[in-house]
Amino acid sequence: YSCVPLQWFREMLIDGVGDGKLKRFRKMLIDGVGWGKFKMFWEMSLDGVEHQHIRYNPLKDSWILVSPHRCLRPWSGQTEPPTEEEPPQNNPLKPGAVRGNGQTEPPAEEEPLQNNPLKPGAVRGNGQKNPLYTSTYVFPNDFPALLERVPEPPQSEHPLFQAKQARGTCRSERDTSTYVFPNDFPALLERVPEPPQSEHPLFQAKQAKGTCRVMCFHPDSNITLPLMTVDEILAVVQEWTNQLSELGRRYTWVQIFENKGAIMGCSNPHPHCQVWASSFLPNEPRIKDRCQKEFYTKYKKALLVEYVEKELESKERIVIENADWVALVPYWAQWPYETMLLPKHGHPQRLTDLTDAQKRSLAEIMKHLNTKYDNLFKCSFPYSMGWHGAPTGPTKIPGDSPHWLLHALYLPPLLRSASIKKFMVGYEMLAQSQRDLTPEQAAAKLRECDHLVHYKTLKKM
Amino acid sequence: YSCVPLQWFREMLIDGVGDGKLKRFRKMLIDGVGWGKFKMFWEMSLDGVEHQHIRYNPLKDSWILVSPHRCLRPWSGQTEPPTEEEPPQNNPLKPGAVRGNGQTEPPAEEEPLQNNPLKPGAVRGNGQKNPLYTSTYVFPNDFPALLERVPEPPQSEHPLFQAKQARGTCRSERDTSTYVFPNDFPALLERVPEPPQSEHPLFQAKQAKGTCRVMCFHPDSNITLPLMTVDEILAVVQEWTNQLSELGRRYTWVQIFENKGAIMGCSNPHPHCQVWASSFLPNEPRIKDRCQKEFYTKYKKALLVEYVEKELESKERIVIENADWVALVPYWAQWPYETMLLPKHGHPQRLTDLTDAQKRSLAEIMKHLNTKYDNLFKCSFPYSMGWHGAPTGPTKIPGDSPHWLLHALYLPPLLRSASIKKFMVGYEMLAQSQRDLTPEQAAAKLRECDHLVHYKTLKKM
Ligand SMILES: O=P(O)(O)O[C@H]1O[C@H](CO)[C@@H](O)[C@H](O)[C@H]1O
Ligand SMILES: O=P(O)(O)O[C@H]1O[C@H](CO)[C@@H](O)[C@H](O)[C@H]1O
Repeated sequence: YSCVPLQWFREMLIDGVGDGKLKRFRKMLIDGVGWGKFKMFWEMSLDGVEHQHIRYNPLKDSWILVSPHRCLRPWSGQTEPPTEEEPPQNNPLKPGAVRGNGQTEPPAEEEPLQNNPLKPGAVRGNGQKNPLYTSTYVFPNDFPALLERVPEPPQSEHPLFQAKQARGTCRSERDTSTYVFPNDFPALLERVPEPPQSEHPLFQAKQAKGTCRVMCFHPDSNITLPLMTVDEILAVVQEWTNQLSELGRRYTWVQIFENKGAIMGCSNPHPHCQVWASSFLPNEPRIKDRCQKEFYTKYKKALLVEYVEKELESKERIVIENADWVALVPYWAQWPYETMLLPKHGHPQRLTDLTDAQKRSLAEIMKHLNTKYDNLFKCSFPYSMGWHGAPTGPTKIPGDSPHWLLHALYLPPLLRSASIKKFMVGYEMLAQSQRDLTPEQAAAKLRECDHLVHYKTLKKM
Repeated sequence: YSCVPLQWFREMLIDGVGDGKLKRFRKMLIDGVGWGKFKMFWEMSLDGVEHQHIRYNPLKDSWILVSPHRCLRPWSGQTEPPTEEEPPQNNPLKPGAVRGNGQTEPPAEEEPLQNNPLKPGAVRGNGQKNPLYTSTYVFPNDFPALLERVPEPPQSEHPLFQAKQARGTCRSERDTSTYVFPNDFPALLERVPEPPQSEHPLFQAKQAKGTCRVMCFHPDSNITLPLMTVDEILAVVQEWTNQLSELGRRYTWVQIFENKGAIMGCSNPHPHCQVWASSFLPNEPRIKDRCQKEFYTKYKKALLVEYVEKELESKERIVIENADWVALVPYWAQWPYETMLLPKHGHPQRLTDLTDAQKRSLAEIMKHLNTKYDNLFKCSFPYSMGWHGAPTGPTKIPGDSPHWLLHALYLPPLLRSASIKKFMVGYEMLAQSQRDLTPEQAAAKLRECDHLVHYKTLKKM
């Protein structure tokens, strides 16, 4: 009885239907049986796992509310502009471009300059020219949230600006296959003042030191990760490990992250990520460190090592895997299409622990996962992604943190289509994360997307 | 030496300058002294408190990165459409409108219907007509994230939908001065199935029961809180306490929250809030409960009672106060213009503890705070806001949670202007919240905004 419509409902839920299709389908049913019965019916169509429940995130000791019946909610709120952004002509991240720090000196170069400061050969705001980089390219963020040092009053010839100048030294150019260029506007200043000390438990502040860098993935503004070759992505992975290795010697935490798409606060479509290193252990890794330590003490096994094993057995949340890596929608995922990228063996604790083979297969699975993401809603899929591994710093050595397993997180905002995102607002900010489709439904949907042929390549064929 | 330009810098920072003004100012300085010196100079202009540091949030046992020097960062990323939204003609939240649940029966009413299901007199999707409400109006969310019960297979006459019907009873109409109307599509179904039980510590899920209601503030779609009279706001406050009192008898947590503005995922500009009640204690209040309990055990005083006292002494983060309430930017604020609304005396633990005088002065300060917010960037200021107080439930009685102090939080996304928001993305999601202007700067800026004359009234004058 009723098996055909139940199946339709389930397909709609798992399909992430667009509002057009949903409206037509709803109207059809309502005309047939009335809204009340229709609504009861879709509630019925959910089985035990799919009915509302809360799930535990053992990595963060927190819970997520899963309410799959919300998938049928119509959406009349804010929609996003298409994410298929044509990189602006004057894209400051393009090779040869002038970055947005106020100066626009014409390039000494022959190449027609398109005013993109991230381009190879671009003259940046400090008058320095980007190298004609062909792979990755790292430079310090002009507006870093974390400064290494803070200036003593600088001396100036200008009558309005009389003070004692005291700039630190610039970072020197690193000589690797990829290119890291010297500090544009060195935030390498003398020292950070201690914030005013308070004895009071409710007014606690601490000194924070750090550095922020920008890393271009590719000289071409149009070539996003899924469109890069595996070798090109491998250069990105290699530069990540270089950055972690260098900055990890000095800093407690090195956060490598990519904000992709305007919807994720990314102000330049040129493919790039950021590296923020800090003298303190930020909240998220601090909580993860504690939870993993507690699990390790109790079970004598790393939480995520155990987790990967279980997921490889059950397979229901796996999106894609290869010899060394697995991408899955975590059991406790918050965002609709959130995934976690984990090593399947070898127990690396930090990016710097990866073998050459693991790096190459990482580049491969990144290409495939990103291709699936782009194919899901036929758009350049926006997300914030980043790496979490054991904390770093001068006292840390390889293998010292067996409770940790290195992993990457992809946190994409889209819910139903390229223009409808999940808003994490009132209830989520004040009470608890809430998701509509289940992690299992999201994984099934991503599994269905092609991982080899990108929709853009298809168009051209 | 150099005091004039230092002051300019500080004013720019505290002013929250628009990008136009910032660009001109930057250009002027760069032309004068060059970008490098300019940049050093604004770093100099920050004093001890304003230099980057991390601050502790004792309510959540977490930290916030404060980097005031990021205020000068130019913004070329996504901007928001103007928040001065004209409510749509077919606004489903307007009195007399038909809500978006698929049915569009013509109203039996004479009044020209503008198809807004939230309007007084609107015929909703279930064929029922909204009362001609004149104050607040509460009804159940058609697409609730939390269901009270889950259906047994319903019976239907339709050949495609053969199953056994088993609807629960509707909520009955409540007879108060404000109006709460009966359940449109009662999610009052038989029971919620337990999710599949797992012994494994990494795969934990629990049953979640609850209910979701919508509460209109006012019959007129254009009258937002700052434009309402104190008496009209008082009716909102009164209905909040009614809701908490009724739902708090059955549920562990009753989250009252308002998502205001399309940027905050609000799909209907009609002034309204939501009430989500749940059988479980969500993450945010659970952590706050723990932190406040620990403080109370250690210091024999409620954390927030102590905090309010200190803030009333120091005054530097206070935005506005009256006889019973104070609105301030918390020392540990995450969002640029985040505020907390706290009672100054009497130690109420829940909304239901408020005296009549406290309710009236709450309505007053809400009007004033919202007027300041709207005047800040001359727009209908978007935010998510909500109430946090001691948990509820059948075993709870007034006065049983002395570690709690009732308070409201306003979490507005805007950073620099009506169209430039703060993106809490990569670093914030993966590592730690980061803010640009300091809480003290934000408080100073809000203090300057008029709290009596709303910019819209001014226009008309
Ligand atoms: O129920 P609404 O207003 O349609 O939905 C809005 O608020 C909810 C509670 O914060 C969020 O879960 C949704 O993502 C948001 O769009
Ligand atoms: O440094 P960007 O890319 O300009 O800035 C972006 O990422 C940062 C780190 O997640 C955020 O703090 C900013 O709000 C966001 O706009």
